[in-house]
Amino acid sequence: MLLDETTLPYYARGAAILGAGGGGSTRSGLLAALQAVEELGPVEVISLDDVPDDALILPTAGLGSPDITLEKIGNPQQGVWLRDAMERELGRPAYAWMAAEIGGNNALKPVIWAAHTGLPLVDADGMGRAYPEVQMISMHLHGVPATPTVLVDERGHHVVFRDMDAHWLEHTARALSVAFGGFSVTVDHSLDGATARTATVRGSVSWAVRIGEILADSSRGDIAERLAPIDGHVLVSGKIEDVNRRTVGGFVRGNVLIDGVASDRGRLVRVEIQNENLAVLEDGEVLATVPDIITALDSQTGEVIFTEELRYGQRVTLVALPAPDLWRTEAGLALVGPRAFAYDFDYTPVEELVARRKESAS
Amino acid sequence: MLLDETTLPYYARGAAILGAGGGGSTRSGLLAALQAVEELGPVEVISLDDVPDDALILPTAGLGSPDITLEKIGNPQQGVWLRDAMERELGRPAYAWMAAEIGGNNALKPVIWAAHTGLPLVDADGMGRAYPEVQMISMHLHGVPATPTVLVDERGHHVVFRDMDAHWLEHTARALSVAFGGFSVTVDHSLDGATARTATVRGSVSWAVRIGEILADSSRGDIAERLAPIDGHVLVSGKIEDVNRRTVGGFVRGNVLIDGVASDRGRLVRVEIQNENLAVLEDGEVLATVPDIITALDSQTGEVIFTEELRYGQRVTLVALPAPDLWRTEAGLALVGPRAFAYDFDYTPVEELVARRKESAS
Repeated sequence: MLLDETTLPYYARGAAILGAGGGGSTRSGLLAALQAVEELGPVEVISLDDVPDDALILPTAGLGSPDITLEKIGNPQQGVWLRDAMERELGRPAYAWMAAEIGGNNALKPVIWAAHTGLPLVDADGMGRAYPEVQMISMHLHGVPATPTVLVDERGHHVVFRDMDAHWLEHTARALSVAFGGFSVTVDHSLDGATARTATVRGSVSWAVRIGEILADSSRGDIAERLAPIDGHVLVSGKIEDVNRRTVGGFVRGNVLIDGVASDRGRLVRVEIQNENLAVLEDGEVLATVPDIITALDSQTGEVIFTEELRYGQRVTLVALPAPDLWRTEAGLALVGPRAFAYDFDYTPVEELVARRKESAS
Repeated sequence: MLLDETTLPYYARGAAILGAGGGGSTRSGLLAALQAVEELGPVEVISLDDVPDDALILPTAGLGSPDITLEKIGNPQQGVWLRDAMERELGRPAYAWMAAEIGGNNALKPVIWAAHTGLPLVDADGMGRAYPEVQMISMHLHGVPATPTVLVDERGHHVVFRDMDAHWLEHTARALSVAFGGFSVTVDHSLDGATARTATVRGSVSWAVRIGEILADSSRGDIAERLAPIDGHVLVSGKIEDVNRRTVGGFVRGNVLIDGVASDRGRLVRVEIQNENLAVLEDGEVLATVPDIITALDSQTGEVIFTEELRYGQRVTLVALPAPDLWRTEAGLALVGPRAFAYDFDYTPVEELVARRKESAS
């Protein structure tokens, strides 16, 4: 598969859905990716089956508060700096890029890096969605070391982290990202082909393209009808009543109230946010929760509204997609379930929650 | 010259004076250095004249808030980690250690590192005193690059900084030090023997030992009489009336009021602090200012009282020593003069200020 002028917009749209509200610069990321493939040619997406066992894969992502990236745009050279620094660190050549997270703008950065370094992108990622913290990644669940990690800013300042676990890396690298003006880009949890075949979420890139194609296809009907083939659910349709959001400690944190409209009139729903949408609550009941993927769409256009863009009065349709299987395991939930974000409730799969609600309504 | 059980206490005492109030862990640093030379043998201090032109010198210091080091003591292994990481970074062996700053506990760290790595210590440093920020160093004044810089904590977490100037390194590495719990140790501004002969403050180690010997010699008379041969001046003798001090952003900041006693009765003097004592003011007039070296001594014992130890009611004698010549130049004052610390007055050498006061009093 190739990512080019035709497929990239679908890919970006699917990544936006999988971003769970994180990644407000996905639109400028798409423009940068389109410019990169226009100038340098399409990016090849390869299956992990075709990656040699010992080939080096570089997972990459941004680190910081996504709202900052609306103004602090990156530098396409960052991919070259990251690759060079990781090759120097490990003493061997890089084989391919991987999105550390397929959600939001972090799906597009490795496309730009790939175009500028001439390396392919593997059809996989470390989350199958987006999460706010460094250790919330499939490679961590599979024991892949977080370091060596390279962090660069848009001006070429380099920092290398060694001998740290993923939690300590999250703590220290985020502090450094704040000092760097709130955002930087990294390679962490680098791994070889053999490890990647078991330690990643496979098929994420093609999955994002497919989601984008399906949602863009108006012949499929309304939002609920388009979501059906990708196992998505509409949680509520409404108007944004209140937005509490602040940038603190390298994160966007807050919550949003949605007032139901039309068939949802009378419902009041709260979305909890830490970079991504983490949980949806109604009258003290959970409608959906991390690790399931909660995304707000513009009710009119079906476009994703990122957490940084949520405003009073917007008409939104809140949707949820099931999390990748690995996050629904005991180990997965310990790392990224609601209690990992200090919520005092357990995880229930969104499809069960939706079925229960339908049952009690009928 | 050797630093051993006999010379180290003098060295530490001299370093404490040159520390300008910074480095409250100098006492525990001395204990650690004594233990290191007892276990591993004395540390050789070599003249820069005996260092080959292309030999690699590693300037080392702590980075963070000195009050934290009273509880967060270091790890003697840190010197081995720093050396190994710098050798890996530069691809050549280290020849000798250097104190980045001769003032306070930072004079003792390279002694411990030297004992544990079997490398000598050069008779020089980067300040001839202590300063609070990374760029306030003679090597910066002489155009030596700040990076590559290695930072390690007491648990062996490694961070390497590349391609940054000294100001940006100060900003980002200090933020990281705060994330590391408020303190870490570094090598920055590494340089070769030929460069070191012009870009450092030479003779600092033997100067610190000499100061320590002179001040310990009670046959020389009172504090003022002991200070005379090292060009030191007593600014005021008094009792501490008030201490405002807080740990913020990786620094100790605040000020102290001293109420004159005996022949100084009726005088009220304020000392301004940022890790070190920066300026002394009386009725709006400057008595002494950075880069001259301002240190508080216990009036009874002559021992240095570090900024972290200042308490209400203490009897102190505030003394000042002239700054090394390089800091009294235009370029030196631009980097470390009072205006570099946002004070709205110019530098006047302490000996001139003292002479003026004597004149107006007579």
